[in-house]
Amino acid sequence: MSLNTFGHLFRVTTWGESHGPALGATVDGCPPGVEIGAAALQHWLDRRKPGQNKFTTQRQEADAVKILSGVFEGRSTGTPIQLMIENTDQRSKDYGDIARAFRPGHADLAYHLKYGLRDYRGGGRSSARETAARVAAGGVARAALAALVPGLTITGYMVQVGPHGIDRSRFDATEIERNPFWCPDAVAAEGWAGYLDDLRLNHNSVGAVIEVVASGVPAGLGAPLYGKLDSDLAAAMMSINAVKAVEIGEGMAAAALTGVENADEMRMGPNGPEFLSNHAGGILGGISTGQDVVVRFAVKPTSSILTPRKTVNQAGEEIELITKGRHDPCVGIRAVPVGEAMMACVLLDHLLLDRGQTGGVRGTVG
Amino acid sequence: MSLNTFGHLFRVTTWGESHGPALGATVDGCPPGVEIGAAALQHWLDRRKPGQNKFTTQRQEADAVKILSGVFEGRSTGTPIQLMIENTDQRSKDYGDIARAFRPGHADLAYHLKYGLRDYRGGGRSSARETAARVAAGGVARAALAALVPGLTITGYMVQVGPHGIDRSRFDATEIERNPFWCPDAVAAEGWAGYLDDLRLNHNSVGAVIEVVASGVPAGLGAPLYGKLDSDLAAAMMSINAVKAVEIGEGMAAAALTGVENADEMRMGPNGPEFLSNHAGGILGGISTGQDVVVRFAVKPTSSILTPRKTVNQAGEEIELITKGRHDPCVGIRAVPVGEAMMACVLLDHLLLDRGQTGGVRGTVG
Amino acid sequence: MSLNTFGHLFRVTTWGESHGPALGATVDGCPPGVEIGAAALQHWLDRRKPGQNKFTTQRQEADAVKILSGVFEGRSTGTPIQLMIENTDQRSKDYGDIARAFRPGHADLAYHLKYGLRDYRGGGRSSARETAARVAAGGVARAALAALVPGLTITGYMVQVGPHGIDRSRFDATEIERNPFWCPDAVAAEGWAGYLDDLRLNHNSVGAVIEVVASGVPAGLGAPLYGKLDSDLAAAMMSINAVKAVEIGEGMAAAALTGVENADEMRMGPNGPEFLSNHAGGILGGISTGQDVVVRFAVKPTSSILTPRKTVNQAGEEIELITKGRHDPCVGIRAVPVGEAMMACVLLDHLLLDRGQTGGVRGTVG
Amino acid sequence: MSLNTFGHLFRVTTWGESHGPALGATVDGCPPGVEIGAAALQHWLDRRKPGQNKFTTQRQEADAVKILSGVFEGRSTGTPIQLMIENTDQRSKDYGDIARAFRPGHADLAYHLKYGLRDYRGGGRSSARETAARVAAGGVARAALAALVPGLTITGYMVQVGPHGIDRSRFDATEIERNPFWCPDAVAAEGWAGYLDDLRLNHNSVGAVIEVVASGVPAGLGAPLYGKLDSDLAAAMMSINAVKAVEIGEGMAAAALTGVENADEMRMGPNGPEFLSNHAGGILGGISTGQDVVVRFAVKPTSSILTPRKTVNQAGEEIELITKGRHDPCVGIRAVPVGEAMMACVLLDHLLLDRGQTGGVRGTVG
Repeated sequence: MSLNTFGHLFRVTTWGESHGPALGATVDGCPPGVEIGAAALQHWLDRRKPGQNKFTTQRQEADAVKILSGVFEGRSTGTPIQLMIENTDQRSKDYGDIARAFRPGHADLAYHLKYGLRDYRGGGRSSARETAARVAAGGVARAALAALVPGLTITGYMVQVGPHGIDRSRFDATEIERNPFWCPDAVAAEGWAGYLDDLRLNHNSVGAVIEVVASGVPAGLGAPLYGKLDSDLAAAMMSINAVKAVEIGEGMAAAALTGVENADEMRMGPNGPEFLSNHAGGILGGISTGQDVVVRFAVKPTSSILTPRKTVNQAGEEIELITKGRHDPCVGIRAVPVGEAMMACVLLDHLLLDRGQTGGVRGTVG
Repeated sequence: MSLNTFGHLFRVTTWGESHGPALGATVDGCPPGVEIGAAALQHWLDRRKPGQNKFTTQRQEADAVKILSGVFEGRSTGTPIQLMIENTDQRSKDYGDIARAFRPGHADLAYHLKYGLRDYRGGGRSSARETAARVAAGGVARAALAALVPGLTITGYMVQVGPHGIDRSRFDATEIERNPFWCPDAVAAEGWAGYLDDLRLNHNSVGAVIEVVASGVPAGLGAPLYGKLDSDLAAAMMSINAVKAVEIGEGMAAAALTGVENADEMRMGPNGPEFLSNHAGGILGGISTGQDVVVRFAVKPTSSILTPRKTVNQAGEEIELITKGRHDPCVGIRAVPVGEAMMACVLLDHLLLDRGQTGGVRGTVG
Repeated sequence: MSLNTFGHLFRVTTWGESHGPALGATVDGCPPGVEIGAAALQHWLDRRKPGQNKFTTQRQEADAVKILSGVFEGRSTGTPIQLMIENTDQRSKDYGDIARAFRPGHADLAYHLKYGLRDYRGGGRSSARETAARVAAGGVARAALAALVPGLTITGYMVQVGPHGIDRSRFDATEIERNPFWCPDAVAAEGWAGYLDDLRLNHNSVGAVIEVVASGVPAGLGAPLYGKLDSDLAAAMMSINAVKAVEIGEGMAAAALTGVENADEMRMGPNGPEFLSNHAGGILGGISTGQDVVVRFAVKPTSSILTPRKTVNQAGEEIELITKGRHDPCVGIRAVPVGEAMMACVLLDHLLLDRGQTGGVRGTVG
Repeated sequence: MSLNTFGHLFRVTTWGESHGPALGATVDGCPPGVEIGAAALQHWLDRRKPGQNKFTTQRQEADAVKILSGVFEGRSTGTPIQLMIENTDQRSKDYGDIARAFRPGHADLAYHLKYGLRDYRGGGRSSARETAARVAAGGVARAALAALVPGLTITGYMVQVGPHGIDRSRFDATEIERNPFWCPDAVAAEGWAGYLDDLRLNHNSVGAVIEVVASGVPAGLGAPLYGKLDSDLAAAMMSINAVKAVEIGEGMAAAALTGVENADEMRMGPNGPEFLSNHAGGILGGISTGQDVVVRFAVKPTSSILTPRKTVNQAGEEIELITKGRHDPCVGIRAVPVGEAMMACVLLDHLLLDRGQTGGVRGTVG
């Protein structure tokens, strides 16, 4: 992975700024013959789209994706697929007053120091708006996965908002699409709604934890040692705006477990070895085992808040800054489809890598 | 990052198995003119070396590193540096009985499925022994960093063993080298000693959390969007054996914070903007800010334990397995120098990348 | 270099098909602060543009380039620069009759076998139309080179059309822009005009040799051993449509020279070592020496001709095929600006690489 | 391809200097399960070994290759294969007198300028001795190709020494191994022997042209646009020491052909489309067509000659230099096995890439 490209064989390069004419993804390495249509990609973009409820930014963007290349008569040709999303609701004036100030928690200062100049409009390249391009690319990855691995599913959902986690005993996958938080626990979702309303009224924001689970992942994906499946997933999730931590399986909690507790014991099932638990999150030695691949990541609170914070500006003056605009009180909500997209891209990439390197060799058991 | 190589410009390829004749690292991209000697590299390897106290594996390895290329008259020439460590204490017989069994929590099954065959001796390529090569490569990175960024320091230590964390109010950096746990809290270290003794007597093991801090890191390192400094650190740490989670700054705890709490406010100091806190862990928008870069990672408990666990073997038989041998009760201990090495490699890599891409441009403030 | 991307740090990914809605280049790694405008890029595109005289295809394309990202207030920001060129004169019907036939000398059969399907319209991805994207990206590279290495020039010209080479004793650089062949020998250019007229009347085409020279290239560019400057130039030029050979300096002729003849002797000049000849083409050991970098490449005759040729179609029928359409009698003519663009991209890439890896270290002489 | 590594999925990193303790190749990405033994690799190294006849350097090197990792019980495991060749006949004293002089035609000055220091012993990293590591890696590639593509053969031979080319009408493949020049024309070989004897007596050297042909290459290899098979072959061959030009198929001669002449017409054969000629050298649009892949490259005359040449030294003094030592009068001879090795590496790499990206999809004809 390097710079604005991620992936080894399924390579996605995103481009574009928050307030430029367009943004998009150059997708190289999609296998040929995959059915891909703008409508199918749009389905995923619509899930991420802002302005759909009061808990996400009120910026209005059609987020309409155009396929400029690489698809012919509805199928991928094996050549680069260019996905473009034009920016329509840019409202540059909203951001004019902070053109020369460094917002706390934002990349403003870091970009200024590194590059000597920056596109300050809406955060420029560092805006979460870039994640629309990821979701579009993830749609391509999903289409290819659907063709190559029938039955593979990827599901993301929120498991924590601020200090309030879900109750796993109430986990109901059918709830996920029923509330604005992609929450599998209907009771928790209700609590979050009130909690976020209060935060917004208080000009505040909060962090969240998202979990993404892939089921039906074939065993054998992952390229040890430095292209391990978990290593690439960690890089992919950590690259999402505002993410501060990534966990696989037990994650940080693994530190507190003993070896006896943490062992995922095995037995023989009808189709080969079966695990009795999944502390590992479906990955051992960097390679998928066939169990569910389980990734979690923490998103920090939205940095753009209406509460004044101390900072400095380019002139070196100390100021107090309120970040006006149309911001998500919990940016984690819109990170759910993004996490799913990254999972799809990484899995497809490793599927292609594995068939390249091993030809899909699989050792037998029994 | 791909396969057995990591890094963009400072590229490290490790090679070798636990019980082969040797292992090592092919280090490509070290800047020319850096003073590098085997003795200096050995210093770092000795810190990781097994068998130094009762809390780490009793395998005896000299871990003597030889420099086979890339260094001339004590200085790097800009050509690949080959670092070789010969295996001396291999004791293959210890492992013979598990040649065809899949140890729970190990990569045995995953490697078997992916490759159809595997070097079962001591875990082969998936053995933590590979991390010796990382530490050697990290020594090269440290030497280059010392030449390029005087004052930069990298310090790793354990902050949690099993459920027992350190008390941050007792943090004393001078303690780190005084106990076998690289623990900055002398009181906690004492508790851990007793706790680990008990675990070992009970044929058990436990996980840990390691923190690595880099101070004196210049602002501007990190290549957004998919070569972000935090993204590369996440990949690097997650690639270490047994690691299940990576945190930057607040990490998972960021989810529970509000935007008001999490904002790292700024003021002007004598040398430019200063932060009043470091929730971000020194990285914003994937770029270093000049603050301490703070990374934590969780290591799962050693999977090799003397308590019998249910599993299957290659013949498809269900068995109970005890993993004999000379194993660490807490593999996290020896992960401390490895985490430091990965930090050194990633920082040097981004230093070279940054001067390549920006020429070291730095925006001014004030 | 891999797939649809070339370059190490200055990375160009081209995308798009001959008859799709658009094509372009995603340019990642342009240093920040470089002045870049659509007008300046257009200058280079206009040189390559078809339909400008009777010796190139009569397809009419505005080849108007749009900058969609990465440039703010006229300067590069260090983020990806998306360059889009919309296709306007597609005339799909011209190509309909060969949708299922494999044109001799074209990539039709190869793409069909590899991918199982292909965008047959105008050659799809394998069309020379793709080179417009290269020229646009080359314009970005030229702008960055102009900022970083004042005085560096890149000049391409034709030195042979069919069997007719230029007379080096008549070489006059000012002639290059005065004839439709980028020919530095006015007499030869006149001869070529008549020769090509005859060929076209006879429904035939012919090959050519292009030479590209870069002057003012700093010593020290090139990353041995597998990113040698000549190795990367060879890959870059060979990637251009219809190119069948690449030469550096003496090229193939070096085989016939003796060591005494081929030695580029040196003396001391006012600014350091000077060479008395340039058989090496400015590159020794894969590294630039400060002399002119001299590359030549041979372009095969245009495969699309009005003379019937035997071939087969997808149904497996043997047919005779005439490739109608608006084709260049000598596709080498339009390859001149493309070769210049590739030279610019490779030089900038190695300039960035070198400052990344060596920091611009230069050994002293005297 | 970048720096000291080449290949996309089959990645070879060579390391080591002419007069260091050892040199070798780190081979990453060999598919698992391939039979690999040191003896088989040695077979290829012995072909390249110096000192075998009076036409190559009299340096005596056993060139014994050791496999340090990645092979278990005689088969590749899918992990990195470390190949080490210890240097035994280093005779550093031979080179001491030119430690601070820049030999014409050598990389001395270029390395000095780029890196500020260099390992001057025997040319250090820029010595043709490095090609031993390529040949060892090529042996691994050949073993994998033999397992994956039965019937594929790779044959290299010399077609020109100085101005003296072979007579293609006398081409006899069985002659290639019968003379010290890998020459398929027995009459030409005899002439070359006398010619080279004379050159050596006159303290001179000469260039050569090598041709490498791969037969039985499956259609569909090559990853357009910037990982084209011909583009990667050009890079690979140009990376060999002293190579100044690379040709595919007709090569430079294609410039003089007309479209009617150059067209490789097709007919239907029993197994699909067949070509009536092979001007293309087996590659169209960067993708193999199933015909013989034909590559030629020109090697310049050995730069180290006993005839004095004008040059400068590090102190800036103008001197006359004789390069003593044990040099090949025609370094092209030993380049034959190296060219074969590079062909093997590139073909295997593209075989793995193709099955990764397309899964081996092949369009049908008829």
